[in-house]
Amino acid sequence: MSSAPRVYLAGPDVFLPAPEAWLERKKAICALHGLSGISPFDPLAEEPVHWSALPDWHGIGLRNEAHITGADAVIANLTPFRGPSADAGTVFEIGFMRALGRPVFGYATTARPFTERTTSHVGLHAAAERDPDGLLVERFGLFDNLMIAVGITGSGGELVTEELPPEQRWSDLAVFERCVMRAAAKLLR
Amino acid sequence: MSSAPRVYLAGPDVFLPAPEAWLERKKAICALHGLSGISPFDPLAEEPVHWSALPDWHGIGLRNEAHITGADAVIANLTPFRGPSADAGTVFEIGFMRALGRPVFGYATTARPFTERTTSHVGLHAAAERDPDGLLVERFGLFDNLMIAVGITGSGGELVTEELPPEQRWSDLAVFERCVMRAAAKLLR
Repeated sequence: MSSAPRVYLAGPDVFLPAPEAWLERKKAICALHGLSGISPFDPLAEEPVHWSALPDWHGIGLRNEAHITGADAVIANLTPFRGPSADAGTVFEIGFMRALGRPVFGYATTARPFTERTTSHVGLHAAAERDPDGLLVERFGLFDNLMIAVGITGSGGELVTEELPPEQRWSDLAVFERCVMRAAAKLLR
Repeated sequence: MSSAPRVYLAGPDVFLPAPEAWLERKKAICALHGLSGISPFDPLAEEPVHWSALPDWHGIGLRNEAHITGADAVIANLTPFRGPSADAGTVFEIGFMRALGRPVFGYATTARPFTERTTSHVGLHAAAERDPDGLLVERFGLFDNLMIAVGITGSGGELVTEELPPEQRWSDLAVFERCVMRAAAKLLR
């Protein structure tokens, strides 16, 4: 499998209970489709010695960046996280990979459009132009903020979404697997 | 001013009323401190012809990416946006610049820590370990998700925050100016 395309598994999945085991399941699904999944929990092949003196959060962040830099693509869990948008760490990683010029794939266990999630989250009328702070509600018919859409579409990636019942949002892997299959179709051809 | 360091002005400021005029005010503050501010509304010096055929959102996103690529640094408005974290588009742009290896500066008109904003937003007890979905509450004592902290600290940037009354969150420019001064001290030396 050493020549399999390497895909970094971005997402708030690291916040789930037993996240290492969960990420191993994702890696197994990647392997099934000919891809080599990289978990944020994976150690680096070699790590600069001085990193061990850094605070935990700094080491984790640098390791994630190194994993992305060494990957051929990112597959990101864009399921909305404590608000209308994806997890901030995940969005950072998408932007990071986008700047490296490699494909970003995304998936989510809801298919509700960004505008609808935004107005609903803020408690606005569905047609409201602005929120109570006077800030415009983005209305481009996209799944999340337009930069995320450009990071995916512009990089040759794909977005896979499906509307699942709320109680399955963080326990489903079928939508992820469909995204892995799309990524494999692109990366293995 | 053509040799002034170029700083891309990232933030949900583009969603404010009269955003072009607001961004011009930010550019004027940059100029006052020897920096050349780049607004997301600025035209590119030259733009690929085929971009004009793209949907609005795609053209906007590619233009933002080109502005960042041509900038020496980013100054990002990290004021929490419709949830505990910064605006997703802004976070994408921070990740993008971080991958390019140039400094990212951030500021916010609140100084409340991320953990406190998160538990308060989700309606959790301040000491809650997990949210109702079972997802861990990040507790690193940082201002936002750890990737944002690494994007700033790791790139040699700085974070400037100040707790302002809610009604001043989106109308204040003093915190931004303090951040510009920090960026100028770094970029002009």
